[in-house]
Amino acid sequence: MLELGVCYYPEQWPREKWEQDANRMVELGLAWVRIGEFAWARIEPSPGEFHWEWLDEAIDVLGGAGLKVILGTPTAAPPKWLVDRHPDILPVDARGVVRKFGARRHYCFSSRRYREEATRITEAMAARYGENAYVHAWQTDNEYGDHDTIYSYSDEALRAFRLWLAERYETVDELNRAWGTSFWAMHYNSFDEVELPNNLVEEPSPTHIVDFIRFSSDQVKSFNRAQVDIIRAHSPGRPVTHNFMSQNTDFDHHKVGEDIDIASWDVYPMGGLLNGRLAVEDKAHYMRVGDPDQPAFNHDLYRSVGRGRVWVMEQQPGPVNWAAHNQSPADGMVRLWTWLAYAHGVDMVSYFRWRQVPFAQEQFHAGLLLPNSEADQGYLEVAQVAEEMKGLPKGERRDKAQVAILLDYNSRWATRALPQGRSYSAAATALDWYSTVSRLGVDVDFIGQHSDLDGYQLVLAPDLVIADAAFVERLAKSGAKVLFGARSGSKTEDMHIPEGLPPGPLSALIDVSIARVESLPDFHKETVLYGNETFEAGVWRETIRTSEMVLATFDGEYRNGAPALVGNDKARYLATAARGALLQKVIDDALGWAGVESLSDLGDLRVTRRGRLRFAFNFGKTTAEVPAPEAATFHVGGRRLAPVGVAIWTE
Amino acid sequence: MLELGVCYYPEQWPREKWEQDANRMVELGLAWVRIGEFAWARIEPSPGEFHWEWLDEAIDVLGGAGLKVILGTPTAAPPKWLVDRHPDILPVDARGVVRKFGARRHYCFSSRRYREEATRITEAMAARYGENAYVHAWQTDNEYGDHDTIYSYSDEALRAFRLWLAERYETVDELNRAWGTSFWAMHYNSFDEVELPNNLVEEPSPTHIVDFIRFSSDQVKSFNRAQVDIIRAHSPGRPVTHNFMSQNTDFDHHKVGEDIDIASWDVYPMGGLLNGRLAVEDKAHYMRVGDPDQPAFNHDLYRSVGRGRVWVMEQQPGPVNWAAHNQSPADGMVRLWTWLAYAHGVDMVSYFRWRQVPFAQEQFHAGLLLPNSEADQGYLEVAQVAEEMKGLPKGERRDKAQVAILLDYNSRWATRALPQGRSYSAAATALDWYSTVSRLGVDVDFIGQHSDLDGYQLVLAPDLVIADAAFVERLAKSGAKVLFGARSGSKTEDMHIPEGLPPGPLSALIDVSIARVESLPDFHKETVLYGNETFEAGVWRETIRTSEMVLATFDGEYRNGAPALVGNDKARYLATAARGALLQKVIDDALGWAGVESLSDLGDLRVTRRGRLRFAFNFGKTTAEVPAPEAATFHVGGRRLAPVGVAIWTE
Amino acid sequence: MLELGVCYYPEQWPREKWEQDANRMVELGLAWVRIGEFAWARIEPSPGEFHWEWLDEAIDVLGGAGLKVILGTPTAAPPKWLVDRHPDILPVDARGVVRKFGARRHYCFSSRRYREEATRITEAMAARYGENAYVHAWQTDNEYGDHDTIYSYSDEALRAFRLWLAERYETVDELNRAWGTSFWAMHYNSFDEVELPNNLVEEPSPTHIVDFIRFSSDQVKSFNRAQVDIIRAHSPGRPVTHNFMSQNTDFDHHKVGEDIDIASWDVYPMGGLLNGRLAVEDKAHYMRVGDPDQPAFNHDLYRSVGRGRVWVMEQQPGPVNWAAHNQSPADGMVRLWTWLAYAHGVDMVSYFRWRQVPFAQEQFHAGLLLPNSEADQGYLEVAQVAEEMKGLPKGERRDKAQVAILLDYNSRWATRALPQGRSYSAAATALDWYSTVSRLGVDVDFIGQHSDLDGYQLVLAPDLVIADAAFVERLAKSGAKVLFGARSGSKTEDMHIPEGLPPGPLSALIDVSIARVESLPDFHKETVLYGNETFEAGVWRETIRTSEMVLATFDGEYRNGAPALVGNDKARYLATAARGALLQKVIDDALGWAGVESLSDLGDLRVTRRGRLRFAFNFGKTTAEVPAPEAATFHVGGRRLAPVGVAIWTE
Repeated sequence: MLELGVCYYPEQWPREKWEQDANRMVELGLAWVRIGEFAWARIEPSPGEFHWEWLDEAIDVLGGAGLKVILGTPTAAPPKWLVDRHPDILPVDARGVVRKFGARRHYCFSSRRYREEATRITEAMAARYGENAYVHAWQTDNEYGDHDTIYSYSDEALRAFRLWLAERYETVDELNRAWGTSFWAMHYNSFDEVELPNNLVEEPSPTHIVDFIRFSSDQVKSFNRAQVDIIRAHSPGRPVTHNFMSQNTDFDHHKVGEDIDIASWDVYPMGGLLNGRLAVEDKAHYMRVGDPDQPAFNHDLYRSVGRGRVWVMEQQPGPVNWAAHNQSPADGMVRLWTWLAYAHGVDMVSYFRWRQVPFAQEQFHAGLLLPNSEADQGYLEVAQVAEEMKGLPKGERRDKAQVAILLDYNSRWATRALPQGRSYSAAATALDWYSTVSRLGVDVDFIGQHSDLDGYQLVLAPDLVIADAAFVERLAKSGAKVLFGARSGSKTEDMHIPEGLPPGPLSALIDVSIARVESLPDFHKETVLYGNETFEAGVWRETIRTSEMVLATFDGEYRNGAPALVGNDKARYLATAARGALLQKVIDDALGWAGVESLSDLGDLRVTRRGRLRFAFNFGKTTAEVPAPEAATFHVGGRRLAPVGVAIWTE
Repeated sequence: MLELGVCYYPEQWPREKWEQDANRMVELGLAWVRIGEFAWARIEPSPGEFHWEWLDEAIDVLGGAGLKVILGTPTAAPPKWLVDRHPDILPVDARGVVRKFGARRHYCFSSRRYREEATRITEAMAARYGENAYVHAWQTDNEYGDHDTIYSYSDEALRAFRLWLAERYETVDELNRAWGTSFWAMHYNSFDEVELPNNLVEEPSPTHIVDFIRFSSDQVKSFNRAQVDIIRAHSPGRPVTHNFMSQNTDFDHHKVGEDIDIASWDVYPMGGLLNGRLAVEDKAHYMRVGDPDQPAFNHDLYRSVGRGRVWVMEQQPGPVNWAAHNQSPADGMVRLWTWLAYAHGVDMVSYFRWRQVPFAQEQFHAGLLLPNSEADQGYLEVAQVAEEMKGLPKGERRDKAQVAILLDYNSRWATRALPQGRSYSAAATALDWYSTVSRLGVDVDFIGQHSDLDGYQLVLAPDLVIADAAFVERLAKSGAKVLFGARSGSKTEDMHIPEGLPPGPLSALIDVSIARVESLPDFHKETVLYGNETFEAGVWRETIRTSEMVLATFDGEYRNGAPALVGNDKARYLATAARGALLQKVIDDALGWAGVESLSDLGDLRVTRRGRLRFAFNFGKTTAEVPAPEAATFHVGGRRLAPVGVAIWTE
Repeated sequence: MLELGVCYYPEQWPREKWEQDANRMVELGLAWVRIGEFAWARIEPSPGEFHWEWLDEAIDVLGGAGLKVILGTPTAAPPKWLVDRHPDILPVDARGVVRKFGARRHYCFSSRRYREEATRITEAMAARYGENAYVHAWQTDNEYGDHDTIYSYSDEALRAFRLWLAERYETVDELNRAWGTSFWAMHYNSFDEVELPNNLVEEPSPTHIVDFIRFSSDQVKSFNRAQVDIIRAHSPGRPVTHNFMSQNTDFDHHKVGEDIDIASWDVYPMGGLLNGRLAVEDKAHYMRVGDPDQPAFNHDLYRSVGRGRVWVMEQQPGPVNWAAHNQSPADGMVRLWTWLAYAHGVDMVSYFRWRQVPFAQEQFHAGLLLPNSEADQGYLEVAQVAEEMKGLPKGERRDKAQVAILLDYNSRWATRALPQGRSYSAAATALDWYSTVSRLGVDVDFIGQHSDLDGYQLVLAPDLVIADAAFVERLAKSGAKVLFGARSGSKTEDMHIPEGLPPGPLSALIDVSIARVESLPDFHKETVLYGNETFEAGVWRETIRTSEMVLATFDGEYRNGAPALVGNDKARYLATAARGALLQKVIDDALGWAGVESLSDLGDLRVTRRGRLRFAFNFGKTTAEVPAPEAATFHVGGRRLAPVGVAIWTE
């Protein structure tokens, strides 16, 4: 069953409003309330002087009204007095400039001092509230990675990076080998000679870059793990979550996900649209509904990160403040996004925020209530969702999908370190593949190389740059067929070209050998001939040598007739970064090949299922027909679905 | 009567040229000459060693020839020896990098040392020349704000900012309240914990930003005031001016204007066009004549800043050097701009510069003379103006207009601190409103919230973000009707959303309540239905609740039928950042509503009046008919006005 | 005769591959191998501890197989231990940030310590290998100027700059005069007051900028010269070269060229196309063949820099890694570029690199071999060239051309210091003029102002901003006619406008006087009437006064009828930065005027000659007819030339 919640900041409102707010939340149908994640300076206004009383009271009021409290550790915002005492807490940007106090996330993950302090405040908070009857869950910190804060170029980071390298490589010779320091005479005689990869004359070794990302990712994991361990010790039985950001790949979310009980994420589709992959005309088309696939992509991704458990910690309730432009969603979208989340396996949707705050940075960010406490549009839509929920069958869980998309953080970092072509975007590629499958009405799970492959009929690997041998072996043994995109298998863990050419270990599945790669500007067009149709190819092209069956060929002036898609019974390899119609053709064929049932192109409609429940969402501008059988029972909406409409049925 | 002048740098030319230059200036019809504003290193080449003799002589030569000297204090360019002795004079940029000596304006307004030194040299200069018979006016410093020099992030600025905050807020609790530091736990325990708002992890509190701007503006005011006080003490009866830049809003010009006798500004329409608000096709159309409204806008604005008295200190005499491209104005434009200035109330136009300098940074900047002293085009046009002036009735003053546009610096800073949408430009909005009125043949005054409202029939407030209660009360009592643009009244002085929603205090005039705002990218189009016509709306849209009459509505997919323009007998509120045809319709209707007579759209023609004189200027590419009565007497030009033409008549 | 070679890095490959590689090189037809230029850390892994044995052995293996070794000094990559010992070696960027170790070229040319160290390692290397029988040539350092490394803003650079200024100007008064410090009171009392021209409030004096460039250029010259002197002392009879970059004008290549025996350069036409002057549609057209004129331009330029001797040290053998996009050249282009080089006077073409390296920064850069040692496309094409070479007449040298283009580094720096218009590109202008001549089938030499003018019929001076009197005098006495482009003669050596207006000393050749200049944005179009045809003019326009014959006039709204091209029997002056059809018309006429035979527009075909050999290259997409006489003997290709085709014949 879908539960609803809201983010609330008692410290920002007069004491006399708390009861009224809490009662109104319950009345609206909310079950959860998140608090506390930026409250350090209120809890400990000066060194060692704790003011718990207001927080005690806030929890009492909220809990007493019937709400389950999610308590955030306040480490995303260390107080000024702390930063002034220990300036080595502050992060340093890539230009070498200290990033000052005055907003949030002003800490370096490698600061030893900050680790101590973050541990100290977490310990204090967990000790005080761990057994509090109203505290039902915990959130660590807030949005790791927001404002580009994973990477810090401080002295503390340098020190920690050298230690990390020493642990990884054991000998400096091994580092020299991995980084390829015989190139340009970058040779190191000791780990203490290594620098952080900023402010260099030219780009550093790609292995240097990727190792710095891996190191930084590990710092996040251990920072988070320290808090989780403390919370679990003091607050057994309460799930711990962290609220991730959409599509952030600055650290390995799978690895941080291992240490928490539920993955949650923050859903802001309006800014997601404007910052996203779509062409300007598509952005205009979806202006007030967002990219139809971006929220679903992240629900599915974080369901994987949370090993099946996923929440929405912050759902946009109206226009926000932080994008280049901040358009209003269409009326009805808050409801639609809530049902979309539920359909994709989300069990709790919490809105950000209860009431629009009339001061400080985010005062243009809508809430469920206007600043004067009148209900805003979002409030009305939440009330509708709460009402509709009552009519639905209970207890439905999302089933495992037949199709899995592989999202490998290590591979992302590989393309970041060696992009090779400015037009190639790994983020856009992943979302394009996901979107293509979704438009064909097929549900998807995300997986990592560590994931169980059981039951998948088709694995899609858009750009598994660094494939590990164990994964390839498991894939080989699984019943899944697999479609590899360009760049797959093109680097080793050391960021080298595999011996015997790419795709390295994937050669065990398919006999291809990549003899040449090239990246192309957007204004140049290559074409592919696939089954008598000609398609536009992408901005990345490879020349492959193969003994496999050729399914499609390049067509044009350069190496006309060269294979563009080849395959055998187990695996296919696509030699271009396909988009649009070509990608749809490739994936549609692959679904058929793998025996996965699909629909014809849904256009702006999306359908998905959770247990027995079937869902349809209309992101278009005209009424659409829902692909439900005659005998379907509609619980919400109906067969004819207006724009911004939601239909839920059982068959 | 219009007086003419020129900027001259005796220190840049051999002594033997001075007499000849001075005589030629007089012969050309010039009455004024500005000198001295970058001459510190010549006056005091080493510490305490003053070389006045050359300046004495220059003043003697120029004054002796019959010219009135405007003497500039040389504080815009401290000498190298001074900077080397006191490096804390230097400003620091937003990245934290010291801005070095080698050009000009290399000082921090908060440097205590520089205050002393600027006072010292001003005192010395005023003491020496205060009673000089040839010195008829003074200029303080030069172009405050040029090269982004209002904001400095030095230690001196930090120290002064903290003191300023302590004075403003008295207690740090009050600062915490105003800045909203309960948000993101930005809480301060003392004023000494506050940082400058640069190099933060994320944007600071908008109140933090606006306070830093207010502080910086106050620093300019007190820096300028110190010089004015010294000059007035030594040189009674001589007016003091400062030459402002066009459309700079980095500090409050009204406030600096209070301390001087005449506002002057520097007129460079060619660069103004290229850097300005117009679309590329309009820039191409006006390539050699400039934006028709940008110079007039600034004449009218600085007439207000100078409380009725306005000069042009620097008039572009041909192509310049500092823009991205430096096109030549059409032949005739120097004359046209001079007459335009006079028409808009300017009493003295000084050209920059006498002779093109063959060395250093500005050698591509035209003068009235070529480097070899031949007359350039501008010289010939000045001669024409001087001749034409003789035939005009004397003593005409510009009358107060019926329409006032409110330009509030504090509100500008509010939109800068919280832009909320990248497409919204307060600068373009103000100029668009001005231009729209001008195209309808209506004269305009600029006002601030401090201004007398007597006699205005219509007040236009394009975006009075922060309205003060006293102004609203005076406006209510005045006979003026008022048209408010979107965002009006949307913030308090503390940069909060007003209690009870925007437009806060303006609700006293009109019953509207802004329930939602949104900003839109340029590629998205909203439309408005206004009197059966459909118009394109702007990049900012508001949802308003109102009991007032609805004059126009939004029309389209999102909240179709929502009010776009509402009003009562006193006030109207426009819920979109209108441009183009919609803005013209709104303003045209408002003029009629307020009983202000207007003409139909003048296209590329502009008309205005100064006392009994009527002026028309043709910025177009074809001959135009001047809207003069049959009986008009033409003093300059005639009824048929060729491109680049000027007509002056009485009726 | 054309010799072939390759760049090889024994330190990057297992010892057991060396013999096989060496033998295969010989078998392929290669005569030269370049090694050693980044090997410092391998040669001297810790202070004073030299490991020559591997290099001894590598030279033995390569030389023993029959290859001539070009040995590079390893100074482009100082080891980490050296940088850690002496951090003042590191360069500082224009923001003032130290550029760290981790890539290459991490040294400041002004570091005294680095001069000593570079000298020490060069001495050691030259002493050891100077008389080695296999070492046939030397290369100093590698690609001076790559990664923007000519300009360093370190303390060492400041110190050296002040000394350089003291030497240049002798007295600070003279510097004050030259820099025009009476402008903005920038006056200096001593050389020690002068700063480097970075992080200023506004742009510094243009003379300050140009002097800093001149100084930096001189630092490169003396740095290089020190190595050359050492090598010549130890290795008499072996030519010394340096591998320049295409179109780099950060230092004076003519001056560095004086000190070496052969100029070489590195040929990367794919990135050259994408970064280059052409419009997007032309870039799309030439996507896989590159700008037809960019390689030839540089061959001709470096032939001049090398005073007749020019090599290609690095020839792109396939796609590379460093451009924004890295497209593959068409199959056949490696062969075409090799023959093009030979045709333009290159005597040795060395490919970069032997085998694609599977690690570090350049792993996406193709080699002649794939990483697994299979032959890549380039290998096959080199084999074809080697075979074709056998059939050609031997001993042909390129003759002096009839037409010379003047490329003056000092003038380039002048337009960089005072661009005056963002649309004007001196680099594009030079290449446009070269390309226009080439399309008319006419061979070109590049010259500097120092060059011998004997035998030229036409000198083209696209923008000789700073003309020296001696050159003008020699030009006057020569038999050559001359066409000057806009901006010619517009500055003195001090970066002043010449007395009596531009074109200063050129007035001795042609009676023109530039009364006004203007720069225009690309969206504005001026037109020129030339012999009854109307042409689009360029982004730079001048108003000239002249008594010479007017050959073409401006045509349009602004100064209609003003001269656009004027001339007498000796010289012509073009008052606009002409491009495209106008430039072709101007140059075509000038060729006729000078009695130089030309062809009609060749389109995508290029023809040139080396001694008796005639060459044609087809850069187009369709088969073209070669302009060979009936009786021609074809040695390579034939009369009908397919795309990517090469024809070589004698007549």
